[in-house]
Amino acid sequence: MSLEPPTAVRPQPPAPGPVLGPRLTLPQPLLLQSGVALPSVTIAYQTYGTLNEAASNCVLLCHALTGDQFVAGTHPVTGRPGWWDDLVGPGRMIDTNRFFVVCTNVLGGCMGSTGPKELNPDTGRPWGLTFPVITIRDMVQAQAKLMDHLGVKQVFCVAGGSMGAMQVLEWAHRFPERVFCALPIAGSYRHSAQNIAFHEVGRQAIMADPDWCHGAYLDEDKIPKRGLAVARMAAHITYLSETALHRKFGRRLQGREALTYGFDADFQVESYLRHQGLTFVDRFDANSYLYITRAMDYFDLAAENGGVLAKAFDKTPVRFCLISFSSDWLFPTSESRAIAHALNAVAANVSFVEIDSDKGHDAFLLDEPEFHQTAQGFIDGAAAIRGLPRRSV
Amino acid sequence: MSLEPPTAVRPQPPAPGPVLGPRLTLPQPLLLQSGVALPSVTIAYQTYGTLNEAASNCVLLCHALTGDQFVAGTHPVTGRPGWWDDLVGPGRMIDTNRFFVVCTNVLGGCMGSTGPKELNPDTGRPWGLTFPVITIRDMVQAQAKLMDHLGVKQVFCVAGGSMGAMQVLEWAHRFPERVFCALPIAGSYRHSAQNIAFHEVGRQAIMADPDWCHGAYLDEDKIPKRGLAVARMAAHITYLSETALHRKFGRRLQGREALTYGFDADFQVESYLRHQGLTFVDRFDANSYLYITRAMDYFDLAAENGGVLAKAFDKTPVRFCLISFSSDWLFPTSESRAIAHALNAVAANVSFVEIDSDKGHDAFLLDEPEFHQTAQGFIDGAAAIRGLPRRSV
Repeated sequence: MSLEPPTAVRPQPPAPGPVLGPRLTLPQPLLLQSGVALPSVTIAYQTYGTLNEAASNCVLLCHALTGDQFVAGTHPVTGRPGWWDDLVGPGRMIDTNRFFVVCTNVLGGCMGSTGPKELNPDTGRPWGLTFPVITIRDMVQAQAKLMDHLGVKQVFCVAGGSMGAMQVLEWAHRFPERVFCALPIAGSYRHSAQNIAFHEVGRQAIMADPDWCHGAYLDEDKIPKRGLAVARMAAHITYLSETALHRKFGRRLQGREALTYGFDADFQVESYLRHQGLTFVDRFDANSYLYITRAMDYFDLAAENGGVLAKAFDKTPVRFCLISFSSDWLFPTSESRAIAHALNAVAANVSFVEIDSDKGHDAFLLDEPEFHQTAQGFIDGAAAIRGLPRRSV
Repeated sequence: MSLEPPTAVRPQPPAPGPVLGPRLTLPQPLLLQSGVALPSVTIAYQTYGTLNEAASNCVLLCHALTGDQFVAGTHPVTGRPGWWDDLVGPGRMIDTNRFFVVCTNVLGGCMGSTGPKELNPDTGRPWGLTFPVITIRDMVQAQAKLMDHLGVKQVFCVAGGSMGAMQVLEWAHRFPERVFCALPIAGSYRHSAQNIAFHEVGRQAIMADPDWCHGAYLDEDKIPKRGLAVARMAAHITYLSETALHRKFGRRLQGREALTYGFDADFQVESYLRHQGLTFVDRFDANSYLYITRAMDYFDLAAENGGVLAKAFDKTPVRFCLISFSSDWLFPTSESRAIAHALNAVAANVSFVEIDSDKGHDAFLLDEPEFHQTAQGFIDGAAAIRGLPRRSV
């Protein structure tokens, strides 16, 4: 029996460069929620479509924990379609013939935006753990600076799933006059104890890897691949429902007729998870994983508003559509319902739909026609109110 | 900020010795399900109460993944109460004034029974990964040999939770004439894809630890503490419900007034999980964890019976009581229900109770009065039919 842990040498995430698309470097330090002033902040982003004269057709898409700015088209690093490629493009749900779509790599990320992998301008060495802890609010503040740069005073729609939904809610809370409508999907207004617990397992897996080098692995020319792969494997289970895992894999064996009585990946689900772990380390930075999970853990819109979530949205002019998925146990429907209740309490314009799906949390990235119809209806309705042209098909 | 992973030096699991209680060494090799004949098998066990003259009052308790033979009294290694100390003793649910209670450390375990931590008699060195992969059936075969040794032809009751329930089902399937009644709690007739996935994460965490030394860490005088701690942390989340985690910890901070903007355990739930990981490595062997999780993954009573679970219990004379917990998402009620359906299909004597509890899978180890009343009623009823004396209180 072979007991090799995942150690195969693989290509590393690319250094930032033209391949990662346009980048904006802020002229001033960004004052973070922690109180730290972060210098030389760079935001890598992608745009699709054209901003209209009134600058009223911008759709800002916010990516999830391990996503990035490459929402549509072919990802330049992985060679795979962008995370919402099915939904973003000419004639698609987010129609690039009528919308100017923007997606940034979040602050703290590893696809070209300032994060622990980038160089600290004061030292010329990678930030590593000297990078300050950032929050969802910080990510949104950086996005707002980009919107300023692009000449967008009010975003037509801010949309995103999972951590993207947290950013959407933060946008609506922090900049209510700059958001026409908001589409938080499979999200939450605060990370739960179980959410924090799973993130902590992932962080401990990374930090337990000696190649993490107390965060200074780039200086040491090492990568904590094993720890990061384990973190990804644990997280990946939480993105799927038990039903989805059962349908996808059940107890089927992987390329063999019978159990081997060993520790090879006898079961397809084991092989799949190992693959998820292995491929993840090719495209993601371990320290970024620490920082971004921490940002999610820290997010709590209720606590920031005296424990009353409704206060976060008092007198909000934003039109909301909340979407959850029935089999999502990471950000269950009860979380979206709590947001809906808070919005109702301040008489906000809100619709809330739970999509019947057995695909788990990841449903927001998958082919779920009812979800797409719901989101499409909301966007088209809001666009009509906003006076934007109809969809091109 | 301190980012030390859990590396503190801690006492190691004790070498087997008198402190671990009586041990039986089988006179013949044990023929395993894999076909391997395992020599010099030793089973460490504990007994409570006295076997009656008819040898009809034996209760065999089967422990879960990380449990052991110390079901009652004070554990000699951890100094804490046994895993069912509340339920086993004079006048308690499993009344040691009337029952002869036996609990073995499972084959493959690390509390004195033969497992990867013990010495291979042929080499004089720890088995490590040269230990053969064992199954739930093998564990039960070893227990049956102990019953022979103790003079117990028929066990009055076989009971256990989680992996213990798997052993109970295997006993009823393999030795129907040797089991009067069976009490599988929070169990399953086969490990699901999600169950396997979580176990695989734990195994990969252990194998990713360089101190695992490809399984030969005892030869190298090392212990893969970090990997084992991460495995335990990930597993521990699955033992609790989201509600239980929320009630126990919520988003409360650990010994601080405000977020630290760092990677310390800001949240109580992080501190709790780290503690779970750290203390686990004091009492458990990493290779045992690999072998026992594998045994659970391999368990599939339906597959072994042509895909028809009912065939596993055809014409069974065993009286069953199945118990599940409403918030158990690791071995959900649907698993017990499937067993109940299979038993109904062969007209077996079975009762099935789902206990309303928000404590998750671990409820079988916790103070759940309705669970205790249900189990008590079943045991007392079966004891009356068996002609055993009444409970002493």
